Amino acid sequence: MSGPMRITVLRLGHRPERDKRITTHVCLTARALGCERVVVTERDDRVVEGVNDVVKRFGGPFAIESGAPYRPLLKNFPGTKVHLTMYGLPMQEVVPQIPKDRDLLVVVGAEKVPRDVYDLVDWNVAVGNQPHSEVAALALFLYAVQGDAAFAKTFQGQIEVEPSARGKVVRPRGEAAPSDES
Amino acid sequence: MSGPMRITVLRLGHRPERDKRITTHVCLTARALGCERVVVTERDDRVVEGVNDVVKRFGGPFAIESGAPYRPLLKNFPGTKVHLTMYGLPMQEVVPQIPKDRDLLVVVGAEKVPRDVYDLVDWNVAVGNQPHSEVAALALFLYAVQGDAAFAKTFQGQIEVEPSARGKVVRPRGEAAPSDES
Repeated sequence: MSGPMRITVLRLGHRPERDKRITTHVCLTARALGCERVVVTERDDRVVEGVNDVVKRFGGPFAIESGAPYRPLLKNFPGTKVHLTMYGLPMQEVVPQIPKDRDLLVVVGAEKVPRDVYDLVDWNVAVGNQPHSEVAALALFLYAVQGDAAFAKTFQGQIEVEPSARGKVVRPRGEAAPSDES
Repeated sequence: MSGPMRITVLRLGHRPERDKRITTHVCLTARALGCERVVVTERDDRVVEGVNDVVKRFGGPFAIESGAPYRPLLKNFPGTKVHLTMYGLPMQEVVPQIPKDRDLLVVVGAEKVPRDVYDLVDWNVAVGNQPHSEVAALALFLYAVQGDAAFAKTFQGQIEVEPSARGKVVRPRGEAAPSDES
Protein backbone atom coordinates (compact mmCIF):
# COMPACT_ATOMS: atom_id res chain seq x y z
CA MET A 1 0.00 0.00 0.00
CA SER A 2 0.95 3.64 -0.13
CA GLY A 3 -0.42 6.68 1.61
CA PRO A 4 -0.96 7.15 5.33
CA MET A 5 -1.33 4.26 7.76
CA ARG A 6 -4.89 2.97 8.08
CA ILE A 7 -5.73 1.51 11.47
CA THR A 8 -8.20 -1.27 12.29
CA VAL A 9 -9.05 -2.26 15.86
CA LEU A 10 -9.94 -5.87 16.68
CA ARG A 11 -11.93 -6.35 19.88
CA LEU A 12 -11.67 -9.89 21.28
CA GLY A 13 -13.73 -11.72 23.85
CA HIS A 14 -16.72 -9.39 24.02
CA ARG A 15 -19.46 -10.74 26.32
CA PRO A 16 -22.67 -8.91 25.34
CA GLU A 17 -24.22 -8.76 28.81
CA ARG A 18 -21.12 -7.72 30.63
CA ASP A 19 -19.03 -5.78 28.12
CA LYS A 20 -21.53 -3.70 26.18
CA ARG A 21 -20.34 -0.40 27.56
CA ILE A 22 -16.61 -1.13 27.62
CA THR A 23 -16.71 -2.41 24.05
CA THR A 24 -18.66 0.67 22.99
CA HIS A 25 -15.95 2.82 24.60
CA VAL A 26 -13.31 0.84 22.70
CA CYS A 27 -15.15 1.47 19.43
CA LEU A 28 -15.73 5.18 20.02
CA THR A 29 -12.14 5.68 21.12
CA ALA A 30 -10.97 4.00 17.93
CA ARG A 31 -13.21 6.30 15.88
CA ALA A 32 -12.25 9.50 17.73
CA LEU A 33 -8.53 8.72 17.40
CA GLY A 34 -8.55 8.29 13.66
CA CYS A 35 -9.03 4.56 13.09
CA GLU A 36 -11.08 3.59 10.07
CA ARG A 37 -12.66 0.36 11.28
CA VAL A 38 -13.40 -1.83 14.28
CA VAL A 39 -14.16 -5.53 14.30
CA VAL A 40 -15.81 -7.16 17.33
CA THR A 41 -15.39 -10.91 17.30
CA GLU A 42 -18.73 -11.69 18.99
CA ARG A 43 -21.96 -10.52 17.42
CA ASP A 44 -23.71 -7.70 19.30
CA ASP A 45 -26.27 -5.69 17.35
CA ARG A 46 -26.78 -3.20 20.19
CA VAL A 47 -23.14 -2.17 20.18
CA VAL A 48 -23.15 -1.88 16.38
CA GLU A 49 -26.29 0.26 16.45
CA GLY A 50 -24.94 2.52 19.17
CA VAL A 51 -21.68 3.12 17.33
CA ASN A 52 -23.42 3.65 14.00
CA ASP A 53 -25.69 6.21 15.64
CA VAL A 54 -22.62 8.22 16.70
CA VAL A 55 -21.17 7.89 13.19
CA LYS A 56 -24.43 9.14 11.69
CA ARG A 57 -24.60 12.19 13.92
CA PHE A 58 -20.93 13.08 14.42
CA GLY A 59 -19.50 11.73 11.19
CA GLY A 60 -17.16 9.24 9.65
CA PRO A 61 -15.99 7.47 7.73
CA PHE A 62 -15.88 4.71 10.32
CA ALA A 63 -16.99 1.10 9.92
CA ILE A 64 -17.98 -1.43 12.56
CA GLU A 65 -18.71 -5.10 12.18
CA SER A 66 -19.40 -7.76 14.78
CA GLY A 67 -19.48 -11.54 14.73
CA ALA A 68 -16.22 -11.99 12.81
CA PRO A 69 -13.80 -14.68 14.04
CA TYR A 70 -10.34 -13.43 14.90
CA ARG A 71 -8.13 -16.11 13.36
CA PRO A 72 -8.80 -15.36 9.66
CA LEU A 73 -8.40 -11.65 10.26
CA LEU A 74 -5.15 -12.08 12.18
CA LYS A 75 -3.75 -14.55 9.66
CA ASN A 76 -4.66 -12.56 6.56
CA PHE A 77 -4.23 -8.94 7.65
CA PRO A 78 -1.83 -7.25 5.19
CA GLY A 79 0.04 -5.06 7.65
CA THR A 80 1.47 -4.83 11.14
CA LYS A 81 -0.38 -6.62 13.96
CA VAL A 82 -0.07 -5.51 17.56
CA HIS A 83 -1.78 -6.97 20.63
CA LEU A 84 -2.10 -4.69 23.64
CA THR A 85 -1.48 -6.58 26.88
CA MET A 86 0.00 -5.67 30.25
CA TYR A 87 2.34 -8.66 29.83
CA GLY A 88 3.95 -7.33 26.65
CA LEU A 89 7.01 -5.28 25.78
CA PRO A 90 7.03 -1.59 26.68
CA MET A 91 5.16 0.63 24.21
CA GLN A 92 8.02 3.12 24.28
CA GLU A 93 10.35 0.44 22.87
CA VAL A 94 8.00 -0.98 20.25
CA VAL A 95 6.34 2.09 18.74
CA PRO A 96 9.51 3.42 17.04
CA GLN A 97 9.82 0.04 15.27
CA ILE A 98 6.32 0.11 13.76
CA PRO A 99 6.44 0.96 10.03
CA LYS A 100 4.54 4.16 9.23
CA ASP A 101 3.77 3.10 5.66
CA ARG A 102 1.91 -0.13 6.41
CA ASP A 103 -1.61 -0.63 7.71
CA LEU A 104 -1.95 -1.47 11.37
CA LEU A 105 -4.21 -3.88 13.26
CA VAL A 106 -4.51 -3.24 17.00
CA VAL A 107 -5.92 -6.12 19.06
CA VAL A 108 -7.55 -5.47 22.44
CA GLY A 109 -8.95 -8.27 24.54
CA ALA A 110 -11.35 -8.55 27.42
CA GLU A 111 -10.32 -10.59 30.45
CA LYS A 112 -9.23 -13.83 28.79
CA VAL A 113 -7.23 -13.73 25.58
CA PRO A 114 -6.65 -17.03 23.73
CA ARG A 115 -3.05 -18.14 23.79
CA ASP A 116 -2.61 -18.19 20.01
CA VAL A 117 -3.26 -14.44 19.77
CA TYR A 118 0.13 -13.86 21.40
CA ASP A 119 1.77 -15.80 18.56
CA LEU A 120 -0.33 -14.53 15.65
CA VAL A 121 0.71 -10.88 16.12
CA ASP A 122 3.98 -9.14 15.35
CA TRP A 123 4.21 -7.54 18.79
CA ASN A 124 2.64 -7.91 22.20
CA VAL A 125 2.78 -4.41 23.62
CA ALA A 126 2.28 -3.20 27.19
CA VAL A 127 1.02 0.29 27.90
CA GLY A 128 2.59 0.12 31.32
CA ASN A 129 2.90 -3.25 33.07
CA GLN A 130 0.11 -2.48 35.55
CA PRO A 131 -3.51 -3.64 35.21
CA HIS A 132 -5.77 -0.82 34.04
CA SER A 133 -8.09 -0.70 31.03
CA GLU A 134 -8.11 -1.76 27.41
CA VAL A 135 -9.81 1.56 26.63
CA ALA A 136 -6.98 3.53 28.23
CA ALA A 137 -4.34 1.31 26.64
CA LEU A 138 -5.90 1.70 23.19
CA ALA A 139 -6.09 5.48 23.52
CA LEU A 140 -2.50 5.85 24.67
CA PHE A 141 -1.19 3.47 22.02
CA LEU A 142 -3.10 5.21 19.21
CA TYR A 143 -1.68 8.52 20.39
CA ALA A 144 1.85 7.12 20.65
CA VAL A 145 1.68 5.78 17.10
CA GLN A 146 0.10 8.81 15.46
CA GLY A 147 1.02 11.77 17.66
CA ASP A 148 -1.24 14.81 17.30
CA ALA A 149 -2.45 13.43 13.96
CA ALA A 150 -4.62 11.13 16.10
CA PHE A 151 -6.91 14.13 16.58
CA ALA A 152 -6.60 15.61 13.10
CA LYS A 153 -9.28 13.63 11.27
CA THR A 154 -12.08 15.70 9.73
CA PHE A 155 -15.45 14.12 10.43
CA GLN A 156 -18.30 14.70 8.01
CA GLY A 157 -21.19 14.58 10.45
CA GLN A 158 -24.53 16.27 10.91
CA ILE A 159 -23.38 18.15 13.99
CA GLU A 160 -20.15 19.34 15.53
CA VAL A 161 -19.03 20.59 18.92
CA GLU A 162 -17.62 24.08 19.23
CA PRO A 163 -14.89 24.23 21.93
CA SER A 164 -16.09 26.29 24.88
CA ALA A 165 -14.64 27.46 28.21
CA ARG A 166 -17.83 26.93 30.26
CA GLY A 167 -20.74 25.69 28.21
CA LYS A 168 -21.98 23.17 25.67
CA VAL A 169 -22.05 24.49 22.12
CA VAL A 170 -23.26 22.09 19.44
CA ARG A 171 -24.24 23.23 15.97
CA PRO A 172 -25.17 21.80 12.60
CA ARG A 173 -22.08 21.19 10.56
CA GLY A 174 -21.04 24.06 8.30
CA GLU A 175 -23.12 26.65 10.11
CA ALA A 176 -21.19 29.78 11.04
CA ALA A 177 -19.99 30.00 14.63
CA PRO A 178 -21.94 32.51 16.71
CA SER A 179 -20.30 35.90 16.69
CA ASP A 180 -18.61 37.07 19.87
CA GLU A 181 -20.59 40.30 19.59
CA SER A 182 -24.04 38.77 19.40
CA MET B 1 2.70 22.95 48.57
CA SER B 2 6.09 22.02 47.22
CA GLY B 3 7.35 18.90 45.53
CA PRO B 4 5.85 17.12 42.56
CA MET B 5 2.23 17.49 41.51
CA ARG B 6 -0.13 15.09 43.28
CA ILE B 7 -3.17 14.11 41.25
CA THR B 8 -6.65 13.18 42.51
CA VAL B 9 -9.40 11.92 40.19
CA LEU B 10 -13.05 12.70 40.97
CA ARG B 11 -15.57 10.36 39.35
CA LEU B 12 -19.05 11.90 39.08
CA GLY B 13 -22.43 10.34 38.40
CA HIS B 14 -21.54 6.69 38.96
CA ARG B 15 -24.60 4.42 38.71
CA PRO B 16 -23.66 1.16 40.45
CA GLU B 17 -25.65 -1.18 38.23
CA ARG B 18 -24.65 0.37 34.97
CA ASP B 19 -21.20 1.86 35.54
CA LYS B 20 -19.39 -0.64 37.72
CA ARG B 21 -16.92 -1.67 35.06
CA ILE B 22 -16.34 1.74 33.50
CA THR B 23 -15.78 3.31 36.92
CA THR B 24 -13.36 0.50 37.80
CA HIS B 25 -11.46 1.23 34.59
CA VAL B 26 -11.37 4.93 35.54
CA CYS B 27 -9.92 4.04 38.95
CA LEU B 28 -7.31 1.59 37.64
CA THR B 29 -6.26 4.01 34.91
CA ALA B 30 -5.79 6.72 37.54
CA ARG B 31 -3.66 4.35 39.62
CA ALA B 32 -1.56 3.04 36.70
CA LEU B 33 -0.86 6.58 35.48
CA GLY B 34 0.50 7.85 38.77
CA CYS B 35 -2.48 9.43 40.54
CA GLU B 36 -2.54 9.10 44.29
CA ARG B 37 -6.29 9.00 44.95
CA VAL B 38 -9.70 8.57 43.40
CA VAL B 39 -13.02 9.74 44.82
CA VAL B 40 -16.30 8.28 43.51
CA THR B 41 -19.26 10.46 44.43
CA GLU B 42 -21.75 7.60 44.78
CA ARG B 43 -21.11 4.81 47.24
CA ASP B 44 -20.20 1.46 45.66
CA ASP B 45 -18.47 -1.07 47.88
CA ARG B 46 -17.91 -3.51 45.04
CA VAL B 47 -15.86 -1.00 43.06
CA VAL B 48 -13.87 -0.06 46.17
CA GLU B 49 -13.14 -3.71 46.94
CA GLY B 50 -12.10 -4.46 43.37
CA VAL B 51 -9.69 -1.54 43.24
CA ASN B 52 -8.28 -2.26 46.69
CA ASP B 53 -7.66 -5.84 45.62
CA VAL B 54 -5.49 -4.60 42.73
CA VAL B 55 -3.68 -2.23 45.11
CA LYS B 56 -3.01 -5.10 47.51
CA ARG B 57 -1.57 -7.37 44.82
CA PHE B 58 0.12 -4.91 42.46
CA GLY B 59 0.94 -2.13 44.90
CA GLY B 60 0.36 1.45 45.80
CA PRO B 61 0.15 3.84 47.41
CA PHE B 62 -3.28 4.52 45.97
CA ALA B 63 -6.44 5.47 47.88
CA ILE B 64 -10.06 5.10 46.85
CA GLU B 65 -13.16 6.38 48.58
CA SER B 66 -16.77 6.35 47.49
CA GLY B 67 -19.91 8.13 48.65
CA ALA B 68 -18.33 11.61 48.90
CA PRO B 69 -20.34 14.56 47.52
CA TYR B 70 -18.59 16.55 44.84
CA ARG B 71 -19.37 20.12 45.87
CA PRO B 72 -17.27 20.29 49.06
CA LEU B 73 -14.33 18.64 47.30
CA LEU B 74 -14.53 20.97 44.31
CA LYS B 75 -14.95 24.06 46.49
CA ASN B 76 -12.16 23.24 48.94
CA PHE B 77 -9.55 21.52 46.78
CA PRO B 78 -6.24 23.39 47.24
CA GLY B 79 -4.98 23.17 43.69
CA THR B 80 -5.93 23.23 40.03
CA LYS B 81 -9.31 21.76 39.04
CA VAL B 82 -9.96 20.42 35.55
CA HIS B 83 -13.13 18.83 34.18
CA LEU B 84 -12.77 16.59 31.15
CA THR B 85 -15.63 17.08 28.69
CA MET B 86 -15.96 16.88 24.92
CA TYR B 87 -17.47 20.39 25.06
CA GLY B 88 -14.39 22.00 26.59
CA LEU B 89 -11.30 23.78 25.33
CA PRO B 90 -8.66 21.75 23.48
CA MET B 91 -6.30 19.85 25.78
CA GLN B 92 -3.35 20.99 23.67
CA GLU B 93 -4.14 24.62 24.56
CA VAL B 94 -4.87 24.12 28.25
CA VAL B 95 -2.16 21.71 29.39
CA PRO B 96 0.73 24.17 28.96
CA GLN B 97 -1.12 26.57 31.29
CA ILE B 98 -1.51 24.07 34.15
CA PRO B 99 0.96 24.85 36.97
CA LYS B 100 3.37 21.96 37.60
CA ASP B 101 3.89 22.89 41.26
CA ARG B 102 0.27 22.69 42.44
CA ASP B 103 -1.89 19.65 43.12
CA LEU B 104 -4.37 18.70 40.44
CA LEU B 105 -7.97 17.47 40.60
CA VAL B 106 -9.27 15.82 37.42
CA VAL B 107 -13.05 15.46 37.18
CA VAL B 108 -14.60 12.81 34.92
CA GLY B 109 -18.34 12.42 34.62
CA ALA B 110 -20.68 9.74 33.40
CA GLU B 111 -23.43 10.71 30.96
CA LYS B 112 -25.00 13.64 32.79
CA VAL B 113 -22.78 16.17 34.53
CA PRO B 114 -24.45 18.79 36.78
CA ARG B 115 -24.23 22.28 35.37
CA ASP B 116 -22.39 23.76 38.34
CA VAL B 117 -19.40 21.48 37.76
CA TYR B 118 -18.56 23.51 34.65
CA ASP B 119 -18.32 26.64 36.83
CA LEU B 120 -16.61 25.14 39.89
CA VAL B 121 -13.48 24.09 37.96
CA ASP B 122 -10.65 26.17 36.57
CA TRP B 123 -10.83 24.58 33.13
CA ASN B 124 -13.22 22.49 31.11
CA VAL B 125 -10.95 20.48 28.84
CA ALA B 126 -11.76 18.46 25.73
CA VAL B 127 -9.61 15.51 24.70
CA GLY B 128 -10.83 15.92 21.17
CA ASN B 129 -14.33 17.29 20.54
CA GLN B 130 -15.72 13.90 19.52
CA PRO B 131 -17.69 11.58 21.80
CA HIS B 132 -15.57 8.69 23.01
CA SER B 133 -14.81 7.58 26.56
CA GLU B 134 -14.02 9.11 29.92
CA VAL B 135 -11.47 6.33 30.41
CA ALA B 136 -9.66 7.25 27.20
CA ALA B 137 -9.91 10.97 27.94
CA LEU B 138 -8.49 10.49 31.43
CA ALA B 139 -5.59 8.39 30.15
CA LEU B 140 -4.65 10.84 27.42
CA PHE B 141 -4.97 13.84 29.73
CA LEU B 142 -2.85 12.24 32.47
CA TYR B 143 -0.21 11.47 29.87
CA ALA B 144 -0.35 14.99 28.42
CA VAL B 145 0.13 16.54 31.87
CA GLN B 146 2.90 14.23 33.09
CA GLY B 147 4.61 12.92 29.97
CA ASP B 148 6.56 9.70 30.43
CA ALA B 149 6.56 10.34 34.20
CA ALA B 150 2.98 9.04 34.07
CA PHE B 151 4.50 5.55 33.86
CA ALA B 152 7.43 6.11 36.20
CA LYS B 153 5.77 5.38 39.56
CA THR B 154 7.29 2.51 41.54
CA PHE B 155 4.57 0.29 42.97
CA GLN B 156 5.25 -1.65 46.16
CA GLY B 157 3.09 -4.69 45.44
CA GLN B 158 3.22 -8.40 46.14
CA ILE B 159 3.70 -9.24 42.47
CA GLU B 160 5.00 -7.59 39.37
CA VAL B 161 4.84 -8.26 35.65
CA GLU B 162 8.02 -8.87 33.71
CA PRO B 163 7.79 -7.47 30.15
CA SER B 164 7.73 -10.31 27.64
CA ALA B 165 7.62 -10.65 23.85
CA ARG B 166 5.22 -13.62 23.75
CA GLY B 167 4.21 -14.83 27.19
CA LYS B 168 2.91 -13.90 30.61
CA VAL B 169 5.61 -13.58 33.23
CA VAL B 170 4.48 -12.63 36.73
CA ARG B 171 6.70 -12.98 39.77
CA PRO B 172 6.79 -12.06 43.44
CA ARG B 173 8.22 -8.62 43.89
CA GLY B 174 11.97 -8.51 44.44
CA GLU B 175 12.62 -11.99 43.11
CA ALA B 176 15.35 -12.16 40.49
CA ALA B 177 14.23 -12.37 36.88
CA PRO B 178 14.63 -15.84 35.36
CA SER B 179 17.89 -16.23 33.53
CA ASP B 180 17.76 -16.38 29.73
CA GLU B 181 19.79 -19.57 29.94
CA SER B 182 17.44 -21.49 32.21
